[in-house]
Amino acid sequence: MTTAPALDRSAMEAATHRWGTRAKPPGSLGRLEPLAVHLAGVTGQAPPPVPTRPALAVFAGDHGVVADGASAWPSEITTAMVATIAAGGAAVNAFARTVGASVTVVDVGVAGSIDGIDGVVDRRVRSGTGSIASRSAMSRDEAAAAVEAGRATAGDLLAGGADLLLGGEMGIGNTTPSAAVIAAVTGRPVRELTGPGAGLAADALDHKAALIQQALDRAGHPDDGLALLAELGGLELGALAGLYIEAAARRVPFVVDGVIACASLLVADAVVPGTAALAIAGHRSSEPAATAALDHLALAPLLDLDLRLGEGTGAVLAVPLVQAAATALRDMAALPDA
Amino acid sequence: MTTAPALDRSAMEAATHRWGTRAKPPGSLGRLEPLAVHLAGVTGQAPPPVPTRPALAVFAGDHGVVADGASAWPSEITTAMVATIAAGGAAVNAFARTVGASVTVVDVGVAGSIDGIDGVVDRRVRSGTGSIASRSAMSRDEAAAAVEAGRATAGDLLAGGADLLLGGEMGIGNTTPSAAVIAAVTGRPVRELTGPGAGLAADALDHKAALIQQALDRAGHPDDGLALLAELGGLELGALAGLYIEAAARRVPFVVDGVIACASLLVADAVVPGTAALAIAGHRSSEPAATAALDHLALAPLLDLDLRLGEGTGAVLAVPLVQAAATALRDMAALPDA
Repeated sequence: MTTAPALDRSAMEAATHRWGTRAKPPGSLGRLEPLAVHLAGVTGQAPPPVPTRPALAVFAGDHGVVADGASAWPSEITTAMVATIAAGGAAVNAFARTVGASVTVVDVGVAGSIDGIDGVVDRRVRSGTGSIASRSAMSRDEAAAAVEAGRATAGDLLAGGADLLLGGEMGIGNTTPSAAVIAAVTGRPVRELTGPGAGLAADALDHKAALIQQALDRAGHPDDGLALLAELGGLELGALAGLYIEAAARRVPFVVDGVIACASLLVADAVVPGTAALAIAGHRSSEPAATAALDHLALAPLLDLDLRLGEGTGAVLAVPLVQAAATALRDMAALPDA
Repeated sequence: MTTAPALDRSAMEAATHRWGTRAKPPGSLGRLEPLAVHLAGVTGQAPPPVPTRPALAVFAGDHGVVADGASAWPSEITTAMVATIAAGGAAVNAFARTVGASVTVVDVGVAGSIDGIDGVVDRRVRSGTGSIASRSAMSRDEAAAAVEAGRATAGDLLAGGADLLLGGEMGIGNTTPSAAVIAAVTGRPVRELTGPGAGLAADALDHKAALIQQALDRAGHPDDGLALLAELGGLELGALAGLYIEAAARRVPFVVDGVIACASLLVADAVVPGTAALAIAGHRSSEPAATAALDHLALAPLLDLDLRLGEGTGAVLAVPLVQAAATALRDMAALPDA
């Protein structure tokens, strides 16, 4: 099995040394210091280059489990929000404009037609998943194709000059497969990983948890990455995993968003071990399974703002922190030798 | 006594209503939603304008208590860092470039000469303070002049087109008067408010706490804002307080930095009651007194990155979050009427 590149320890040591010689008290930039050291480890350069062309891919897909009552919203909303993001009217578009990131919307598994929606990249693998409560989300071949769609998207963005990759998603119902994936990998109890997602009422959470438990009872805890994705995942989860895998393989920094992204990172790390070690966690979603996944991967998120929207919003908001850390390490004056 | 303008409840209600009609689940943008509502309350506009010209003022001053062993560093470092910031080589300059903020360095109370340092605005009130452990930091007239220097600086920045004000400081030893001010206002025990500042060794913290306690025993707990500043404060604290007072008076949003800034906000709120209600807390400094002040003012900081550098770094890093919140509320598509 292929593995991700290791962090470059030599570059990290050089970056750490450089922090120690800048004009400030040691450690006083807090978490931004290890962040810049991490960038050195990913890129193999010290000081690491400052990313100036962040690019977000928003992968869209639908979920059969929605028909079983997993979400407060119908799957048609996925198509409507794909159109809204493609038109620039979603929250993530506003955030991307603020930080100067490009936004690319990619259909990897929407159930309905997206004909007539301009500006969506068509990499559809299949039209929605099977309901994980009763059957596989997709075949193993489809899982591999979803990962490949994400890798190809990353390749396109990098060919276009991107130097920092961000992943987002849109898919009604996708906190359910995400919690299932996170439960399968972490072994944590389903009920404590089950959150309201986009607004499920408190009295419907038990039903959502029951659906996730049915999926786990059916599929077990697959330790093979593609089996995990095929049995419990979703098409946009697979594409996000592929984006992370490709970024890591090319030693390009990437920022992970909320609970769906965290589940996708677990998939990525199962498909290509070592991928998660190169990730930057953008934020802590208020969905409980996100924290379980972050803890499992020993990742400390940069932001904690109670976001639970997805779309990549929490990854995009972290971009200026990544840029600031790298800029400070590159540009700060040295302490006098005295 | 004059008071600060009240938050505009009507604009805040309109902003809250607008959030409820945007294309996203209610509340899913977490803390960015009340942030944009706050901007509406400060500016009186809904949706509030997106700030595009953030301006940072870094006020510099020295502290007599350094001669008593309050800091790991000598006061000469203040002058050296003023030169570094004026030359663009400090951490805050790197961060300001990242977010597009201007940086203005203002001498309000440096002890040494700044002749020969280009690019520093001279508003010096006096050359360093008296040691608060044994005497007043400054006279009441000097305290008023320090506040006025900050107000005038804010006025200059606003006249230049700034639409978001950020305050920072440079002053070796200034966590000591800050902790004294915060102890006087909050009544919390001195020892739990005493942190290492720019790097005081653990075995020197008891001495620092003793100096703060001596200051409080000497001065009592002044409830008059200018007396608080004159007895326990510092010149850059007074100028920061003035910056906040002027921003609030003009209904311009402003972002508060770490522990010195939090102490200054307490001074501002004592001089002009209601000022703190208009503040945005940029981050939670790792200095313990910062959290005590934030809790006292019921302010929730946006970032929590273990920063303890000052200079305005934590205020500058919060700028993209402020811009993102306002941009989303202004630009997001409405939910369909259905």
